[in-house]
Amino acid sequence: MFKNERQIQIEWGDCDAADIVFFPRYFAFFDASTGALFEAMGYTLRHVRDELKDVGFPMVDIRSQFFKPSKYGDKVVIKSEILQVGRASFGVRHQLFNGDDLAVECLEKRVWACHDESGALKAKAIPDDIRARMLNEN
Amino acid sequence: MFKNERQIQIEWGDCDAADIVFFPRYFAFFDASTGALFEAMGYTLRHVRDELKDVGFPMVDIRSQFFKPSKYGDKVVIKSEILQVGRASFGVRHQLFNGDDLAVECLEKRVWACHDESGALKAKAIPDDIRARMLNEN
Amino acid sequence: MFKNERQIQIEWGDCDAADIVFFPRYFAFFDASTGALFEAMGYTLRHVRDELKDVGFPMVDIRSQFFKPSKYGDKVVIKSEILQVGRASFGVRHQLFNGDDLAVECLEKRVWACHDESGALKAKAIPDDIRARMLNEN
Amino acid sequence: MFKNERQIQIEWGDCDAADIVFFPRYFAFFDASTGALFEAMGYTLRHVRDELKDVGFPMVDIRSQFFKPSKYGDKVVIKSEILQVGRASFGVRHQLFNGDDLAVECLEKRVWACHDESGALKAKAIPDDIRARMLNEN
Repeated sequence: MFKNERQIQIEWGDCDAADIVFFPRYFAFFDASTGALFEAMGYTLRHVRDELKDVGFPMVDIRSQFFKPSKYGDKVVIKSEILQVGRASFGVRHQLFNGDDLAVECLEKRVWACHDESGALKAKAIPDDIRARMLNEN
Repeated sequence: MFKNERQIQIEWGDCDAADIVFFPRYFAFFDASTGALFEAMGYTLRHVRDELKDVGFPMVDIRSQFFKPSKYGDKVVIKSEILQVGRASFGVRHQLFNGDDLAVECLEKRVWACHDESGALKAKAIPDDIRARMLNEN
Repeated sequence: MFKNERQIQIEWGDCDAADIVFFPRYFAFFDASTGALFEAMGYTLRHVRDELKDVGFPMVDIRSQFFKPSKYGDKVVIKSEILQVGRASFGVRHQLFNGDDLAVECLEKRVWACHDESGALKAKAIPDDIRARMLNEN
Repeated sequence: MFKNERQIQIEWGDCDAADIVFFPRYFAFFDASTGALFEAMGYTLRHVRDELKDVGFPMVDIRSQFFKPSKYGDKVVIKSEILQVGRASFGVRHQLFNGDDLAVECLEKRVWACHDESGALKAKAIPDDIRARMLNEN
């Protein structure tokens, strides 16, 4: 399935008083990595919102394991991959490597969403071209 | 002019590896304090957006001085006050007290904003009833 | 087991361009809720760090499900409870209610940690008095 | 004086419900830009903390002007430059460009800090080699 990877550097502001990454920051990294994955597929969230008039792909279920802390200044690599594609939902796996070590692994389940008439979020089928792109190797 | 105050407790996630509040977090506190000031006036940002169809009051100029660091677990008081009200812009002062000490002072200048036809933000006059409320003591 | 609850109000800065809480913010809420749970037990993280000379209780595994989005201005209640206590690790469940609806549920597994001689984090047994407090009803 | 620049992309999580960057996020960008400026000078904050045993350079005064909002997906350039170097304090200017437009300008005043015997932060003279590096063109 479609894959992407990017490198980021841990910033001072990502870390807490134990001098390690404050774990909610990992989820901001992973959210941006899912964004980058869609951008690499040719479908930015901007496109999804402005052209398709959909809302995006809110999170419905997330699981993350933290194997090794990362620290200020560390250059880490996040490898992201589509894991599963349903009618309206899909899974993404993020693996954050610090050097050779798998430091954090995260599984996201997200749902494709639009607004219903009342303005509430509702699931809808992933557009066919986007599903096709998700299912194929880069 | 209108005033409000609220107490918050410094959270673990607000602090950095020097064990003091990471300064951008103060601006999230102050933004929420400006929100609370409008809520106390009877005009939540939700009202501004849903009823008045305005965007809100984006920041145009901010100045902040940091006199004393605050730490995890500290209970601090933020005193907020409308300082100046123009046609389309207004000023707010926030003073964050840690015990008896003035720890941080911040001056915000914000502008009342709506969307123009192209969807860009543009300044507009502050609604009269809201201006009147800002100018009066609570 | 020990329980705590607290109310928070969703701030403007907690929300994203879909006008719902940006999900990493929930983890900052839950982290602060675990902090509040320990404070209610009589053991703040400040105590753990300054008196016991331990580092705290970093996250090792987290799972969260998102049932219903929350929006700017919503007043939500977070109910937190110790779920399981091992030798060096423990579980916490957070349930975030928006009105009567369970909006988010989160299961945390954390480990009690100190520094080894090299300065790296290592697990250690939860102090007996703290374990006893965790295991008992408030 | 010493200069640095870096490009960043505005992430979904940087933006608020008005679909523009939530202004406290700019300060996280600028803080990381000051970190990158010191890294480019050859003195990371890690070096300052681990080798020099100093705390870093906390903010004492900041002023920022917001000329133009930035949006999700924008690629912006932050140009950072040492503006002034005193005995224990220094100034940094950040200019964030979105395309050809100066979108945000920020002036930071920071102070070089160590811990006194009681563990409180206190100002100390900037080390000579670092001051020399700050004062020179790259």
